[in-house]
Amino acid sequence: MTKKELIQLIIRKQSFLCIGLDTDINLIPKHLLKYPDPVFEFNKAIIDATRHIAIAYKPNIAFYESMGIKGWQSLEKTMIYLHGFKDEIFTIADAKRGDIGNTSKMYAKAFFEWLNFDAVTVAPYMGKDSVKPFLEYKNKWTILLALTSNKGTEDFQFLSTGDEKLYEQVIRKAQQWATPEQLIFVVGATHPEELKSIRKIAPDNFYLVPGVGVQGGVVEKICESGMNKDGGLIINSSRSILYASGGEDYAERATIVAAEMQDKMLPFISELV
Amino acid sequence: MTKKELIQLIIRKQSFLCIGLDTDINLIPKHLLKYPDPVFEFNKAIIDATRHIAIAYKPNIAFYESMGIKGWQSLEKTMIYLHGFKDEIFTIADAKRGDIGNTSKMYAKAFFEWLNFDAVTVAPYMGKDSVKPFLEYKNKWTILLALTSNKGTEDFQFLSTGDEKLYEQVIRKAQQWATPEQLIFVVGATHPEELKSIRKIAPDNFYLVPGVGVQGGVVEKICESGMNKDGGLIINSSRSILYASGGEDYAERATIVAAEMQDKMLPFISELV
Repeated sequence: MTKKELIQLIIRKQSFLCIGLDTDINLIPKHLLKYPDPVFEFNKAIIDATRHIAIAYKPNIAFYESMGIKGWQSLEKTMIYLHGFKDEIFTIADAKRGDIGNTSKMYAKAFFEWLNFDAVTVAPYMGKDSVKPFLEYKNKWTILLALTSNKGTEDFQFLSTGDEKLYEQVIRKAQQWATPEQLIFVVGATHPEELKSIRKIAPDNFYLVPGVGVQGGVVEKICESGMNKDGGLIINSSRSILYASGGEDYAERATIVAAEMQDKMLPFISELV
Repeated sequence: MTKKELIQLIIRKQSFLCIGLDTDINLIPKHLLKYPDPVFEFNKAIIDATRHIAIAYKPNIAFYESMGIKGWQSLEKTMIYLHGFKDEIFTIADAKRGDIGNTSKMYAKAFFEWLNFDAVTVAPYMGKDSVKPFLEYKNKWTILLALTSNKGTEDFQFLSTGDEKLYEQVIRKAQQWATPEQLIFVVGATHPEELKSIRKIAPDNFYLVPGVGVQGGVVEKICESGMNKDGGLIINSSRSILYASGGEDYAERATIVAAEMQDKMLPFISELV
């Protein structure tokens, strides 16, 4: 999906909501356990209940990996299902991979070829050659961790490196490696103040913003601090939508919570062309 | 495996060689392609040909992931095979994972429970809470990226953060999170000078040292710079052993190259108790 198509999708759906598929077999409604693949059944129902509102889905790879071969099969099925809505859904592998060049190339192959995601999250610590193999795919996106939503940001991301913090250096340097047509930054919803200053360093990139809901980020604050002329934000919510209800009405409740999030976005979307 | 057992293993085998199982279906000898699982056949033969010399095996997860479900099945089979030599082989998942707490917990589950590795490599960028779930497993090891072997280290790892470089901060901080009984650092063989100064910051930890052979690191230099009273090093070699020959003699050639590496280590091991 190109940047232009992503912007059109946001305007068409009047939303920049991404739903994180952090599907945990221990948290999904018990009645689903009778299906041969409860994780896929759950994902399918969540997608069907929210795809008129969500522009993107973000399977959190750890949750599938933790279930072994079965988990990878559930993920593969989920991706095939999502590909049935190719032009209306942007798909993100939340994998946070990154390794030396010849190894990153293999990770890129896994997510861009085997599972055919539009985008994959990548960790910056190992530098340019660890990111480059992901950037070599046409019309695919690299989503680089910049300032994450968790408490651990204090340990390294906020360290001063001369005039700038480490996360600012990551954002500045990565812009020399790739255009805003292929590079998105992760900026946690728990940092609305920093979001403002980041927007000055990277005016044209989209940001993937995790950390609303359970982690404490607030949609309106993020929009006020982080939007640009294209919108420029993809706000992710996982647990508050997936587990809005633990009962048989989980899909209906997911629709309601997703729609509530969309409502908070609408005033900001109306300002876009 | 405990630290004491790891040290005993090194003395018993007279080696601190780790073999990286970066098994690439396009590089293994063609005659193996007739087997139902060529990747596993190759790994099995390499393990059999080298396990009297190697103390550790390090499957590079990307290579398996890139092959989809089949790749994960090859990895699962390889792990079951390695577990047959439980007390004589230390197993490392080279996965470079790391995410917010509840997600890292799932990665830890994948590698420590499903695949039952002794150790997993973890990326530090997201800080303490991204590393902690791995540290919660008893007798399992977290191998934290500090100074990697690739060119991209220049981008962030070598940045000055006050009096120290970023990689030095990583090593110093992580020691507050975990003891040398459960924490290993990745220090690339391409940085023998830095290895000396790192040994002053982390005197008691083991280091996993990738980057000899194809990437240019030299065994003797690493030993001179990085050893401590326990040995304290696990030197990894992947491609130069795995692909020593592309023909039917690949396993014999792997033995020879592994033994050549062991020869370089022997003078240093004789100094251990």
